[in-house]
Formats: sequence, C-alpha cells, structure tokens
Amino acid sequence: MIHITIVGTGALARNLYHNFIESKKVALQIIGRSKEQLDYFSNATTTTNFKSAQDSELIILAVSDTDVSICEELIGISERFIVHCAGSLALDVLKSPNAGVLYPLQTFNIINIVDLKRVPILIEATNESSLKYINNVAHIISSNVCQLNSQKRKEAHLAAIFANNFSNYLYGISKELLEEFDLPEDLLDELILQTAKNAIANHPKEIQSGPAKRNDVTAIKLHLDMIYNPNHKDLYEKLSNAIKDYYYEL
Amino acid sequence: MIHITIVGTGALARNLYHNFIESKKVALQIIGRSKEQLDYFSNATTTTNFKSAQDSELIILAVSDTDVSICEELIGISERFIVHCAGSLALDVLKSPNAGVLYPLQTFNIINIVDLKRVPILIEATNESSLKYINNVAHIISSNVCQLNSQKRKEAHLAAIFANNFSNYLYGISKELLEEFDLPEDLLDELILQTAKNAIANHPKEIQSGPAKRNDVTAIKLHLDMIYNPNHKDLYEKLSNAIKDYYYEL
Repeated sequence: MIHITIVGTGALARNLYHNFIESKKVALQIIGRSKEQLDYFSNATTTTNFKSAQDSELIILAVSDTDVSICEELIGISERFIVHCAGSLALDVLKSPNAGVLYPLQTFNIINIVDLKRVPILIEATNESSLKYINNVAHIISSNVCQLNSQKRKEAHLAAIFANNFSNYLYGISKELLEEFDLPEDLLDELILQTAKNAIANHPKEIQSGPAKRNDVTAIKLHLDMIYNPNHKDLYEKLSNAIKDYYYEL
Repeated sequence: MIHITIVGTGALARNLYHNFIESKKVALQIIGRSKEQLDYFSNATTTTNFKSAQDSELIILAVSDTDVSICEELIGISERFIVHCAGSLALDVLKSPNAGVLYPLQTFNIINIVDLKRVPILIEATNESSLKYINNVAHIISSNVCQLNSQKRKEAHLAAIFANNFSNYLYGISKELLEEFDLPEDLLDELILQTAKNAIANHPKEIQSGPAKRNDVTAIKLHLDMIYNPNHKDLYEKLSNAIKDYYYEL
C-alpha cells in the first residue's frame, strides 16, 4: 500500500479520495480544518493536525489556489513528495525540494463523483525521481497521464475555462429561459448531451449551426426581441456577432 | 405500414429517415432535387418529383426555414397531412388544411445519426385529427412527444440557441486554443462531456466554477494576457463580466 495524505475536504479532495480508495492500492489520510467535513471520509484516517502529513510518502494539496502555500507552511518543509492540484499555479509556488503538480483536467463537485480513469492528469515535478513517483501515483487513478510544464498547464487551464466555465454559464442561461417561459425543465437535456458528444466527435467549428452561422438577421432580431434579461440579450448579441465574424469575416 | 414522404436530403432528413426505418412501421419516400443526394436513402423509394408527395399519408418538410413554403407550393395544396420541422417558424406558414409541426429539439449533422427515442418532439397542428395523427407518428420515433404552440416552440428554440449554438462555439474556441498552444487535441474531451452531464444533473447556475465565479481578477488578467486572438479575448472578458455580474450583482 502507498501511504498518501490528501489535504483538503472539498470537491477535489472527495473525488480523489473515492478514486484512490477504489484502486485498493492506497492507504489514505485526510487532513482538514473542520472535524465535521472530515466525517465524510469514512475509509481513511482523518486528522486536523497538518504536521501528520509528514507520516506519508506523498502529500496532495487539494485546496484552493490561495491556500496552497499556507498549507505547505502548516505542514512544514521536508523531503516528502508534495504536489498541488491547481491548473493555473506554477510548480515553484511550492518550496519543498521534492515538489510537483498533479492536476486532473476535470470539473468537480461534491454531488457527482467522477471516475478519473480517462481523465487527463497533468503532472510536473522539480526533479526526475519526484516526477517518476508522481507519474506512478497518477497512473493508479488514470490511464491518461500527461507530463506538461507550468506554462503548458496554464494554457490547458485557459482552454478549459471556455470548455467548462463559459459553456456551463450558457447552459445556465438556457435553463433560466426554460423557467422564464414556463417550459419543461428537462426539455434541453438531450440537446446538451448531444452538443457535447458532437463537439468531441467532430471539430466544433465544422458543425456550427444556428441563425448566426446562417447570418439569419431576421431570426436574430426576433430572438433579441424575445429576451427580457438585458444581460442575456447582450450575450446573445455578442456571441452571434462573434460567430458571424468568424464565418463571414465581416 | 404508414406511408410517409420526407422532403429534403440534409442532416434532419437523414436522421428522420434512419429513425423511421429502424421502427419498421413506416414505408418511406424521399423527395429531393439532387439524384446524387437521394442515393443515400437506400431503404426508401426516392424521386425528384415533388408532386409524388401526394401519394403518402403524411408529408414531412425536412428543409431549411426559407424552403418550407416553396416546397409546399411545389407539392401543391391538398388534404394530406403535412408538417414542417422548424423551431422558429409558426404553424401558419403552411397553407394546407391539415397542417402541423413536428420539431425534434435536437442538433443534427450527417455524420453522427442520433437515436431520437428520448429526444423531445414538439408537435402542433391546425385541427384535432391532424394533431392526433402527428402525435401517433411522432411516438413511432420518440417516447418524449410534447404538444406546444408556435410561440412556446419559438421560446424553446431560443433557449436551445444558448444550449447548443453558443456552447458549441465556445467548445470550438477551446479546441482552437489547444491547437494554438500545441496541446493534445483530445485534452478537453472528458471535461466537455462531464460539463454537459453536470448541467443536466444539477442546475448549472449552482455548480458554476472558475475565476469569474470566484471574482479572481488576477487569474482573469493572466488569462487575458495569454489570449492572442482579439475576438477570443473579447468573449473571455464579456463572459467573465456576465458571470461576475450574475454572482456579485456588481
């Protein structure tokens, strides 16, 4: 058994916890500030004492970007392998000699636990032995491990903002419109799923459809008149213009 | 066997064709202008003669919005059931007495044929007997048939623009960024799929994440500096502001 400590009790910590436990290859310790939150991790030893991290081979900081350095300080600098999991933080925010990054390129929440087997895990380390160790650990939970330096990881994270954060916001607007129009709340579910599947099976730019793609100004005008929320109206216009610009080079 | 004519040879026609053939309950005739395109439909009778539509019980106009009226004229007005499949066209664009709408709320392309069984089919008709008939036909391909008038259908179509057209455009930008940064082209595939699954399992507004949601101005600034394409930069800024506005009511 490999002895790993996860610091943090949020969505990422919970998803890592379930995936490591599932592997049956890892003995886990979870460190968190709140005893209540620690109760969730019934198949791991838990503690509020950050120094206990030193008892394990690898320390995974599954905390928010701003807490990464604070947690490393609370634990104390040592020869232990230590990684953070942040897409947009460079490796050198960690001061420990055997430091690295283990960044699962996925979106997490505490309700739907994700199977990480096919999820890209982006790794990086300060030296070869750390990289080898982190690579082995990453392979326990995913078959898709990818070595990328801090700059490339930041770039991947930026692309992920468009694929996840912004798309999710638009899905949110579409659901709000269903509520506003008193339409069934699940009316767009199949469309949302198929949109994602199509974007993977094809280049999204090649399967773009809709009024903006057709430069159908009548339909666009009609839609704008139907949107009450000025922020939604504004986004409809901006996105339609962006699509028109792209396809017609106006 | 029910005798149905589909007018059109594009993505929607092909998807309807496969779903009706699969049901084994329908004898299909396909009408199109191009003999070459008609070759695709090997399990149907095909013709370029629009008047032949009159030989079937139901005529489905699976053509672009602008061609709906033109096709009805080419076929000629009769007592036959006739439907269009356009989300944003009212029922009354058709002049035939037994007219209706059969609108599958889904995105279609000619490469990936979609199983329509769970896809909402929005229907409407000029009279009760037509509605009953169209309802029966819609149930052959989907268990999710929903009667909505032209106004409600237009509203559903507008919400679908956000869920499909605009999301797809953002997926396209994310893939372009991967190319630009020389990152693996499938790096975001699992994220894109999970984003869609999460948007269905939860209200997207409740699981929003990212720098804009956290009002993390440092990360936003960093990202903006990394985007070369001015259109992408502009959209990043607009979408981040929209998210900040929504969550912080700035």
